Amino acid sequence: MSDSPVPVTVLGLGLMGQALAGAFLAAGHPTTVWNRSAAKADELVGRGATLAASPAAAVAAGSLIVVCVTDHRAVRELLEPLGDALPGRVLVNLTSGTSREARENAEHTAAQGATYLDGVILTIPSGIGTPEATILYSGPRSTFDEHESALRALGPGATFVGEDHGLAALYDAAMLSVMWGLLNGFLHGTALLGTAGVSATSVVPMLGQGIEAVTGWIARYADQIDAGVYPADDATIDTQRAAMQHLVEESRAAGINGELPAFVTKLADRAVAEGRGGDSYAALIEQFRKSA
Amino acid sequence: MSDSPVPVTVLGLGLMGQALAGAFLAAGHPTTVWNRSAAKADELVGRGATLAASPAAAVAAGSLIVVCVTDHRAVRELLEPLGDALPGRVLVNLTSGTSREARENAEHTAAQGATYLDGVILTIPSGIGTPEATILYSGPRSTFDEHESALRALGPGATFVGEDHGLAALYDAAMLSVMWGLLNGFLHGTALLGTAGVSATSVVPMLGQGIEAVTGWIARYADQIDAGVYPADDATIDTQRAAMQHLVEESRAAGINGELPAFVTKLADRAVAEGRGGDSYAALIEQFRKSA
Repeated sequence: MSDSPVPVTVLGLGLMGQALAGAFLAAGHPTTVWNRSAAKADELVGRGATLAASPAAAVAAGSLIVVCVTDHRAVRELLEPLGDALPGRVLVNLTSGTSREARENAEHTAAQGATYLDGVILTIPSGIGTPEATILYSGPRSTFDEHESALRALGPGATFVGEDHGLAALYDAAMLSVMWGLLNGFLHGTALLGTAGVSATSVVPMLGQGIEAVTGWIARYADQIDAGVYPADDATIDTQRAAMQHLVEESRAAGINGELPAFVTKLADRAVAEGRGGDSYAALIEQFRKSA
Repeated sequence: MSDSPVPVTVLGLGLMGQALAGAFLAAGHPTTVWNRSAAKADELVGRGATLAASPAAAVAAGSLIVVCVTDHRAVRELLEPLGDALPGRVLVNLTSGTSREARENAEHTAAQGATYLDGVILTIPSGIGTPEATILYSGPRSTFDEHESALRALGPGATFVGEDHGLAALYDAAMLSVMWGLLNGFLHGTALLGTAGVSATSVVPMLGQGIEAVTGWIARYADQIDAGVYPADDATIDTQRAAMQHLVEESRAAGINGELPAFVTKLADRAVAEGRGGDSYAALIEQFRKSA
């Protein structure tokens, strides 16, 4: 790790790219930027950034190159012509994508003589550079360690998740699945209570308590999953399936969408059919592991 | 509220009924119990409970009657023959059921001259009587207030949710929907990371952070839902739908079950088709409100 801020380059100045470049500037890094439409650089240039005339010129100016563009195709289109400029550089791709795309980028980048870190930003642009900004990185540990201080300019929650380049994307996917699961449960429950005149706002405190309780169980379920045994200390899948059927019934009786509880029940039905009715909810991991 | 513990009766001594009777005994209430198979009362009798010879005798001995049996049918079979014994009693039904069943019980009970509270226990038997025990009650507010001190023997978190007898069951349903949503997201994410060799246990801390963040957004989304406007301060449904499609792709590529993200995507597709792509995730409430 170096004490004097390394020169960095940010390719792509959408809202997120602008926030990233701004955070590097705020931390004292010599910052070069490039964007397809140069006007987006105006404010950053006013704050001391250098606008490069081309991606190649931008890459030549930095030792740490951060890419944040629309999608994987835009990443490839940007990087492929840069063969000459890349050797010796460290490329950090913060564009959203899949684990397969991350591994593909790593291969291409290696062929171009550069080192690759894949990253996933778990915050909105206004969170960049603040304590809320968690960014997950995967790729060579030594590269992450070497550049950690620069990466921490984007957020103190710079977190290394593993050497497999696909891991940051997989962690992101897992967190999104939890997020949508939680939000959909909240929306379904709120729709249900809404039919009895209960406002969404008044439901929140109690749901918050419930979420906290369930978060506590998750640690115990994780132990069961890793051990491959699912003792039902709390409630069996059989018992929960009866409650799921109630929820389908409640939804139908209230005239709201019952697809979510029907989906949940279908998973439990399969687990019961495989003899898991007496196990804890964690045994449903087996259903999720199967290709549908 | 009375200062000397009122005589209570507990009908049904499954694991939960035994825990309820035990908590009343611990709080000094004269406690009468009844169960179809009397042997389940042995331990409670050893601790000072009175075993009644019939449901009618049990009901005659208490002013507050708690029912905790297998299901709604068992409740009806137990209570219907008790016409003579019920007048003037307060019946608290803690058997799991739907809001419709709760309202039906309230009508029958009123016809039998008693007052009805429906309740939902949000803990496992070993949690009864401890600070973790939240129990939700719905029915006449004055009845809850009058018996709150006795009900708090079962858990200090005795919470009145409204006069509509169906509300406790609806809150329970909403909380279960959140719970299963969260757990299924966790299991899907864990299955996904498992394909890259990541243990469930090592995923938990990061998911915990994510859950905490999402819980914070829920309050803001609730405000949007009550206001009926869904400004996308964070991420639009369009943006999230792209990430959902990634998650379907990740699941397929990893060879695991992709039904959950496919379901989530389907909901977002519908919202986008209705012109909600530029709104926040909270706009999906409209999809949940529709009968499927």
